[in-house]
Amino acid sequence: MKPWSREPRGRFDELEIDSALLRGNPLADPSVRPLWVYTPPGYDRAPKKRYPSLYLILGLTGQIDMWKNRLPFRPNVLELCDELFAEGGAPPAIVVFVDCWTRLGGSQYIDSPGTGRYLSYLADEIVPFVDARYRTLPKPEHRGITGKSSGGYGAMVAPMLRPDVFGGFASHAGDALFETCYLPAFRESVRLLRERYRGSFDLFWQKLREGPALQRPEEGVLMNDYCMAACYSADPDGTVRLPYDLETGELVPEIWERWLAWDPVRMARKHGDALRSLRAIYVDSGKNDEYFLDLGALAFRRELDRLGIEGYFFELFDGTHRAIEYRYPLAWRFLAERLSER
Amino acid sequence: MKPWSREPRGRFDELEIDSALLRGNPLADPSVRPLWVYTPPGYDRAPKKRYPSLYLILGLTGQIDMWKNRLPFRPNVLELCDELFAEGGAPPAIVVFVDCWTRLGGSQYIDSPGTGRYLSYLADEIVPFVDARYRTLPKPEHRGITGKSSGGYGAMVAPMLRPDVFGGFASHAGDALFETCYLPAFRESVRLLRERYRGSFDLFWQKLREGPALQRPEEGVLMNDYCMAACYSADPDGTVRLPYDLETGELVPEIWERWLAWDPVRMARKHGDALRSLRAIYVDSGKNDEYFLDLGALAFRRELDRLGIEGYFFELFDGTHRAIEYRYPLAWRFLAERLSER
Amino acid sequence: MKPWSREPRGRFDELEIDSALLRGNPLADPSVRPLWVYTPPGYDRAPKKRYPSLYLILGLTGQIDMWKNRLPFRPNVLELCDELFAEGGAPPAIVVFVDCWTRLGGSQYIDSPGTGRYLSYLADEIVPFVDARYRTLPKPEHRGITGKSSGGYGAMVAPMLRPDVFGGFASHAGDALFETCYLPAFRESVRLLRERYRGSFDLFWQKLREGPALQRPEEGVLMNDYCMAACYSADPDGTVRLPYDLETGELVPEIWERWLAWDPVRMARKHGDALRSLRAIYVDSGKNDEYFLDLGALAFRRELDRLGIEGYFFELFDGTHRAIEYRYPLAWRFLAERLSER
Amino acid sequence: MKPWSREPRGRFDELEIDSALLRGNPLADPSVRPLWVYTPPGYDRAPKKRYPSLYLILGLTGQIDMWKNRLPFRPNVLELCDELFAEGGAPPAIVVFVDCWTRLGGSQYIDSPGTGRYLSYLADEIVPFVDARYRTLPKPEHRGITGKSSGGYGAMVAPMLRPDVFGGFASHAGDALFETCYLPAFRESVRLLRERYRGSFDLFWQKLREGPALQRPEEGVLMNDYCMAACYSADPDGTVRLPYDLETGELVPEIWERWLAWDPVRMARKHGDALRSLRAIYVDSGKNDEYFLDLGALAFRRELDRLGIEGYFFELFDGTHRAIEYRYPLAWRFLAERLSER
Repeated sequence: MKPWSREPRGRFDELEIDSALLRGNPLADPSVRPLWVYTPPGYDRAPKKRYPSLYLILGLTGQIDMWKNRLPFRPNVLELCDELFAEGGAPPAIVVFVDCWTRLGGSQYIDSPGTGRYLSYLADEIVPFVDARYRTLPKPEHRGITGKSSGGYGAMVAPMLRPDVFGGFASHAGDALFETCYLPAFRESVRLLRERYRGSFDLFWQKLREGPALQRPEEGVLMNDYCMAACYSADPDGTVRLPYDLETGELVPEIWERWLAWDPVRMARKHGDALRSLRAIYVDSGKNDEYFLDLGALAFRRELDRLGIEGYFFELFDGTHRAIEYRYPLAWRFLAERLSER
Repeated sequence: MKPWSREPRGRFDELEIDSALLRGNPLADPSVRPLWVYTPPGYDRAPKKRYPSLYLILGLTGQIDMWKNRLPFRPNVLELCDELFAEGGAPPAIVVFVDCWTRLGGSQYIDSPGTGRYLSYLADEIVPFVDARYRTLPKPEHRGITGKSSGGYGAMVAPMLRPDVFGGFASHAGDALFETCYLPAFRESVRLLRERYRGSFDLFWQKLREGPALQRPEEGVLMNDYCMAACYSADPDGTVRLPYDLETGELVPEIWERWLAWDPVRMARKHGDALRSLRAIYVDSGKNDEYFLDLGALAFRRELDRLGIEGYFFELFDGTHRAIEYRYPLAWRFLAERLSER
Repeated sequence: MKPWSREPRGRFDELEIDSALLRGNPLADPSVRPLWVYTPPGYDRAPKKRYPSLYLILGLTGQIDMWKNRLPFRPNVLELCDELFAEGGAPPAIVVFVDCWTRLGGSQYIDSPGTGRYLSYLADEIVPFVDARYRTLPKPEHRGITGKSSGGYGAMVAPMLRPDVFGGFASHAGDALFETCYLPAFRESVRLLRERYRGSFDLFWQKLREGPALQRPEEGVLMNDYCMAACYSADPDGTVRLPYDLETGELVPEIWERWLAWDPVRMARKHGDALRSLRAIYVDSGKNDEYFLDLGALAFRRELDRLGIEGYFFELFDGTHRAIEYRYPLAWRFLAERLSER
Repeated sequence: MKPWSREPRGRFDELEIDSALLRGNPLADPSVRPLWVYTPPGYDRAPKKRYPSLYLILGLTGQIDMWKNRLPFRPNVLELCDELFAEGGAPPAIVVFVDCWTRLGGSQYIDSPGTGRYLSYLADEIVPFVDARYRTLPKPEHRGITGKSSGGYGAMVAPMLRPDVFGGFASHAGDALFETCYLPAFRESVRLLRERYRGSFDLFWQKLREGPALQRPEEGVLMNDYCMAACYSADPDGTVRLPYDLETGELVPEIWERWLAWDPVRMARKHGDALRSLRAIYVDSGKNDEYFLDLGALAFRRELDRLGIEGYFFELFDGTHRAIEYRYPLAWRFLAERLSER
């Protein structure tokens, strides 16, 4: 019965995975994690057939069930997925919905002493877990990763760091060119800290946990700065280092350099071989993205060009950072086509 | 496993109801509708006990599964519900999640030749359906209705029109005092129609249906104006009359009067006996509500005072129109306490 | 020496006029008023020649010396004027810079017991004063009036009410279609009054006078509402009646009707003969005017069409309400051409 | 006759100065410049008395006649000045209104091959010009400089660079801590260039000169970036180097370092002796300054503290960047008191 429920033509399995790598993580976040796997129509009727696999990763604050969030008059992401593979003519693929939430908002899908070993969890636990249970084509050239925003970031960096695992990616408005996407908000954080939280991130987090969380949307910058610092510039003992003076906003160059080392634009310069090895690269962003991730996309594209990479997809579309889930199927199709067996 | 899944302590049943009243509705929307019913912890162990019932209705564009939408770091509405009745110490109640979505966004929970007979559907089909299947206290004094925004509107007007069915209500930021909540947006609609839709609502709806819907959030005014006109000022043959000139925005007094007849503030003046009969009235709004529903709340309160009604709950809280679902449990508890058997 | 000073080619006389009509005005505003008169290049060398005259009137809060306000990289209004007549090839005209400021912001250039007799002052004192001292063509068909915003309003209504004085006008973004330009702000005023001024306009004015005035720009709505009420709906004894309930914003129909009687769109329906008698009508507005005066312009145009008036100028240009002084010379030229002797 | 004209009690002289240092400046801006000098009441009756002098400098885009710009219901700056010295009880001082406008908006009151030798012009031409014509106390300890925004910047740096000339300063919302006040806007410039100016600053300036200038206020960032680059990072031959890649916004470190060398916060670390020599330091900013100059003020204060400087004035007041001219008299009084003869 439309529009409330659309019986999927493929199948969604809601699983759990007990992660050894996340056990004892520094934030005491759960190490048993949800994982959803979508198998396309026909999967059960073709017991020998193997499929490429697409790993979907969430943006900051994303929990797995947010894939079901519905916007007015729109299909949710699960419905988009089923539609693409049931009606859209995309080559069949297995789609894996990953959760790397942390109580700071997320993990950027990297290993950090500030949050946990999320890249390893993804590459060394989730992927084998899926390969063991589903008829994937279990090689990097048939495995893609995709997401938006922080998920778009993860989609860019995971294949650079683990080309042995991922052979393609699609990034929608992924965090990149950190001086344009992150730095401009620092000053807002400093002012908010001063005016509302006595200069203390601890107080901010305490109030957030008491709830209702993030009642004032402009305070998202505080969560973002702190979470990114936990990902990019935590000390080995887990101490989170902010890249700016909390009272004035003056940049702390040595911490800021640690952030820049995680910037996909800078990383691309060091991971050219990995990038060249990929079978599918898709990058887009809204022209009016609130975080100016169009600039990150342009800068990343320039690095691809410098590396001599061809055949990637690139688009700046007419839109912002919000409500762009309708772009996902474009990327999934792109990945499914290029990551299928030839 | 927190925070992703919280096994409910009560029970959620996801049902369907085949509505005779909605069959052949003017928008050709489905007449088989989803309906969810929550029974509190202990319900199954007390087979003779009867409970008050709370009907939850959605805001504009709301589909039933949006109750599961999750905001960052927050429980969703179903979780809030289960928490309240499992841990919060509220008197047990049966909670009914209603869907009156239409392809124009909603129905305002009234009967209209422009949308369908949604008040009747709610009062004469859903309520008996629930009473027949669940151990409710099947009298108006044990039945409440609540919602936010257009749901808050419905919560105000349903008991005025059908005091034989509903004996209490809670309205969060309910549409009221139409010259303050609706009229100011008309000029925005007129300009948007002119600049983007060649002056035509038909073109607006066509583009919305092609999707992605409402990509530009500022266009919500177009949907709102048209949907409200379908609810408040459709002709008997279903023709939707807008209360303003589409080219200039000049008010059309006779249509505007038809709207005002549906304003809860004006309606209160005619339905004093119904309002006086209620056992529970709860009204709140954010002080900075984007639609200025704080003013509607204040005006509605004045009518309650003029009617000599006492003991109602009223609050203007520090907040806006968004992300205020954390207020719902306050209202549910209020209703559950006053609508329980004494 | 450009760009700081441009010796005018014409001449600006800064005069004063002692008004009998403004003496004892209800706001105790000065009755001795500044008046500037511009004579075009060649005026002094042609002692017999007579010229059409253009009366420039200010927007709300306008004091005469604001004509000299300079925006970055732009000529001020006096420089625009001199440029047009010295280099721009417009037919020569005498330009009169009028001041009808009041301590409430302005007068709308009408007679009101709430502010003073400003239309009479303009028509019966200033015009004869100028005609007596300058070689004007002292007939309505050679006399135009123009302004922006409240000045655009005055430019529309003065010729309707006093076609014996003004034979043409140009209105830039003039207040019109009051339900679109004024009413939507009422709710903002009510909230501001409640949150900042204990519900009292008196307190608002007291704080404004203590200064710094209007530090928070969003509070302009309070000034506007009150000043317009002083102009449109003051009782004979000067009591100012607001068209809405100060606590809820509910419209007070009988006061609102008094406002509507002053709406140029409604007035046009009663003053068709006056409008038909005019030699020059110019109406424009920015498409994105913050007060939606594009809609007022469109509605006013419709009335002109209904009256069978032809040959008027109409344009919705790409712009807002601010920084549109560059449009003035278009209007001055239009008026000078049509109001010159033929 | 208030409020339109207030006969000053002191005297304003409007002078011109023919600058040798500005002759042949790289932008071909005028080298004959306006200069206004205010002498306080009593100046002419005390022919032997000598006075401290205050140099007022303008913000970006400021031309000298903008001191006369009037905001609604407020005195203009000249009136504030006369009020302070005629009624306000401040020690008498001579006030010099300086103009360092350029066709790029301004000069930051420094010497640059991109704009001209404006600091030298101020210190070596204007100051001697004034001292020669007015009874100043012609020593640095009796000479102060003050301004807002870019004028506040100039007020901070001029005494650091020329303590032989200026012995005190007051900075309102002065440009400082460049990563917080400038860098965040770079991304906006890049997007605007891309979307509206084919990536070219030349096209931006061409359109600005065709006028109307800066019709879209959000484009001020383009002017600002370019003008600051002309001030801070022009090559010896006048070539203007932007500190970011025009297509992506990626920071160009070597150019950005050239900017930072002009940051008052960094400069303070090198000019401690100059700062310690000053008799008057006044720093303020609005807490909600749009350019976050509150952070620059806080960072500058920290440097003062590190230098062991005491007795300075510091305040973050409740306000933004606009309409804060009412703060000026606080600073003028502060300077006049500290720079008078003791």
